[in-house]
Amino acid sequence: MKPDPRPIGEDELEPLATGAWILGAGGGGDPYHALLNLKQLYAEGRQVFLLDPEELVDDALVAVVSTMGAPLVGEERLTDPRMAALAVEMMEEHLGRPFDAVMSLEIGGANAFQPLMVAALRGIPVVDADTMGRAYPEAQHSSFAIGDLRPYPLTLADVRENAVVVSRAASWKWMERISRKVCTEVGSIAATCKAPRTGLEVKKWGILRTVSQAIRIGRTVLEARARKADPVAAVLELEDGRLLFRGKVVDVDRRATGGFLRGSARIEGLDENRGSSFQLDFQNEFTVGWIDGAPRVTVPDIICVMDSISGEAIGTETLRYGQRVRVLALRAPALQTTPKGLEHVGPRAFGYDLDFRSVFEGGNVPSEGPSGAGSPAYGGASGREGEAP
Amino acid sequence: MKPDPRPIGEDELEPLATGAWILGAGGGGDPYHALLNLKQLYAEGRQVFLLDPEELVDDALVAVVSTMGAPLVGEERLTDPRMAALAVEMMEEHLGRPFDAVMSLEIGGANAFQPLMVAALRGIPVVDADTMGRAYPEAQHSSFAIGDLRPYPLTLADVRENAVVVSRAASWKWMERISRKVCTEVGSIAATCKAPRTGLEVKKWGILRTVSQAIRIGRTVLEARARKADPVAAVLELEDGRLLFRGKVVDVDRRATGGFLRGSARIEGLDENRGSSFQLDFQNEFTVGWIDGAPRVTVPDIICVMDSISGEAIGTETLRYGQRVRVLALRAPALQTTPKGLEHVGPRAFGYDLDFRSVFEGGNVPSEGPSGAGSPAYGGASGREGEAP
Repeated sequence: MKPDPRPIGEDELEPLATGAWILGAGGGGDPYHALLNLKQLYAEGRQVFLLDPEELVDDALVAVVSTMGAPLVGEERLTDPRMAALAVEMMEEHLGRPFDAVMSLEIGGANAFQPLMVAALRGIPVVDADTMGRAYPEAQHSSFAIGDLRPYPLTLADVRENAVVVSRAASWKWMERISRKVCTEVGSIAATCKAPRTGLEVKKWGILRTVSQAIRIGRTVLEARARKADPVAAVLELEDGRLLFRGKVVDVDRRATGGFLRGSARIEGLDENRGSSFQLDFQNEFTVGWIDGAPRVTVPDIICVMDSISGEAIGTETLRYGQRVRVLALRAPALQTTPKGLEHVGPRAFGYDLDFRSVFEGGNVPSEGPSGAGSPAYGGASGREGEAP
Repeated sequence: MKPDPRPIGEDELEPLATGAWILGAGGGGDPYHALLNLKQLYAEGRQVFLLDPEELVDDALVAVVSTMGAPLVGEERLTDPRMAALAVEMMEEHLGRPFDAVMSLEIGGANAFQPLMVAALRGIPVVDADTMGRAYPEAQHSSFAIGDLRPYPLTLADVRENAVVVSRAASWKWMERISRKVCTEVGSIAATCKAPRTGLEVKKWGILRTVSQAIRIGRTVLEARARKADPVAAVLELEDGRLLFRGKVVDVDRRATGGFLRGSARIEGLDENRGSSFQLDFQNEFTVGWIDGAPRVTVPDIICVMDSISGEAIGTETLRYGQRVRVLALRAPALQTTPKGLEHVGPRAFGYDLDFRSVFEGGNVPSEGPSGAGSPAYGGASGREGEAP
């Protein structure tokens, strides 16, 4: 392996946090504490290098890392770089071979920083890629699962002395079930190292250059904020996003259950959306948005809720009454909108009897105005229509 | 290591099953299916050897195996020798070293056969020892836990392709919590290989020669049955046991929950116990017995329920209305009645506000006749007195 990585500057850390939090689609956890951790590591003289995925040789061994758990719990039990590195060391011990590089399971939220922590402590580069292009709640939502790569082994470490290796799993869903139960038992938060990947697998199945994308988005927000421009509009322009709704959060129903943060929020329309209501469901991340009871946007479109003024992303655990927000959609990675991709991350994979219609193909624009019944192509949204105010 | 094991004859398998089921104290699972498995393995020409623990060299590596889960589930998802061997192979792979011998976590119930299955398939001897001298529900109840030996690693395999290594645990209770959650998730039954032991550890902390003890008890029952004698009386005589109650099962409250079979049974007195009622609580195994609301016997005394005629043991999952039974107590291994032992397996370890008074020291004989209030030394049995008929 001939790595040709570039150093990630300390001035890129805050843009990465801001951009990753937007790409989190409400989940992945607020990157703030992880950002502080990285700043501390940089202050101690550590340095992290970013490696373009094309620089990976085919047989390079790549660690895929994440903090697993309910984002709400992450607000109390803080990220610990040593725990992140411990999961990676456990995997090296299990494999009997050291890693050449590390990447994130998900670029969205705090997990964007998980590989940086490992990299800072272990001296290996971070691959400019992830497996989701955002955050998703479960193992089978990763691009490596869509590619039917091997789901195991997985290592898990907690803040105590507990450490678990799931050395085989019958499927991605079994891997999810087993590791989630362990995670829940140790307090609904744990550092994990997912199934190791070769350079070839990362190049073929990874969602590429998402670290750079997150830094770019974050930088755009921070620059717009600095020049008193509209950060939300700047992101929409940069990423060719779609503005879906503008309003005020009026209700949040949220519960930490089964290792996830589940619930729904209601946003009352303002300005051009006055008189309408937007309902946003979530399982760690935003899954489906409804305008006046009709589906407007679903996974895998990246649904973002941003503070209308600051352009700061708002997570499913930080949503609260009174926030002025804009809801927007960013494009899903192409792999996720293929038929196989939709099996893993489409609305049906989250329990909704809905087909995916990308807002980027105009599929969900209500054709009969804001009070219309929504696209009839959807059908089957029964039991949810009653949510309109 | 210079093993000098003796072959276990095929004619010893049924006595082992009968005796182990009695030592199960209601738990460990009916050994019937495991017995059939062993007979099949013997029919295929396999042979199992029994090794006296004193023959173990100090640095021999010993596998400690068991089927983990709720006994009731074991009635439907049957024991599989390959699954038992798989957990052991996983451990060898994890350690990078082969085992010299194998022993049971618990001699009680089907788990008496778990090492025999492994031994038959892997060609290593079975150590004549276990860690409980009976069956107990949880990891921290083993003699190795009482000895404060290291609780990890543990390997777990299920009937699918799932396999988990708990490579570290903060304590025996954490090991129990984590492995139990995984076990429950894969269907409340799994083959496990517990923390590996050295020959020295087995000799110092194991409960020794319990395989021979189980065979001896079983042979006594079968011989008594053959000559139309009273098998229960024969066991009482052989083991210097105590007859606690004679009666008919009139009520069973049983639920499989949290990976355990929990509940309580009520036995109405017959003959010398007519007019009295015996209540028997269980968590997989029998934990506390009450006569007319007063505690009569508690863990770690080995509480056995036997069919009054056949002398067959009755398990917590096979108790049912109408059975004519005798309840007896056998002596707990000495280690379990030390103060440290009682911390792990005394009544308080099972949530009862009771002190241990061995029936072998007369501690629980009701001094005021069968309708008396029981030994006042107990105290704190409030909330249970109401169970008398």
